[in-house]
Amino acid sequence: MVARLTDGLREESLAALPDWRWDAERDAITRRFEFRDFNQAFGFMTRVALIAEKADHHPEWSNVWNKVDILLTTHDADGLSTRDIQMAQAIDALL
Amino acid sequence: MVARLTDGLREESLAALPDWRWDAERDAITRRFEFRDFNQAFGFMTRVALIAEKADHHPEWSNVWNKVDILLTTHDADGLSTRDIQMAQAIDALL
Repeated sequence: MVARLTDGLREESLAALPDWRWDAERDAITRRFEFRDFNQAFGFMTRVALIAEKADHHPEWSNVWNKVDILLTTHDADGLSTRDIQMAQAIDALL
Repeated sequence: MVARLTDGLREESLAALPDWRWDAERDAITRRFEFRDFNQAFGFMTRVALIAEKADHHPEWSNVWNKVDILLTTHDADGLSTRDIQMAQAIDALL
């Protein structure tokens, strides 16, 4: 069982993830990624999928051609947890 | 330039795609796919991505763990075209 982040920890974590936005309604973080084309976008998604599967923590995401929208939250915690912060860091590190 | 399907052709085409629903607002077709887990879902997405890239016709799609939602429409035609029907058939053939 993983705990939902307190307000203080969430703010601290998000300060270190300037490209991610907090979705208050879902208690989630989101980021849009734009690539040159579909090939680049889906290549990125494949790398994220491998990380997600290994961590057993999966994004909610969508793709339209060169754009990928990712939302991270932890269903077991009913909101944002350290697992989402770690996943966001791992995704950012791909770029 | 590919033409938007007439109402008659659209109805005829959709009759042959019983698992797809027409989204009148977008003039698009949509289908939800459910798999055992993320591994199966993303494996399916990868196969669809290869077909889409080869056809140079890409879906709008989203994934949440074992679920994949696909929407097909043709931006150049401002609605549904034969390219979407062919793509839906090719996707269905993967299952």
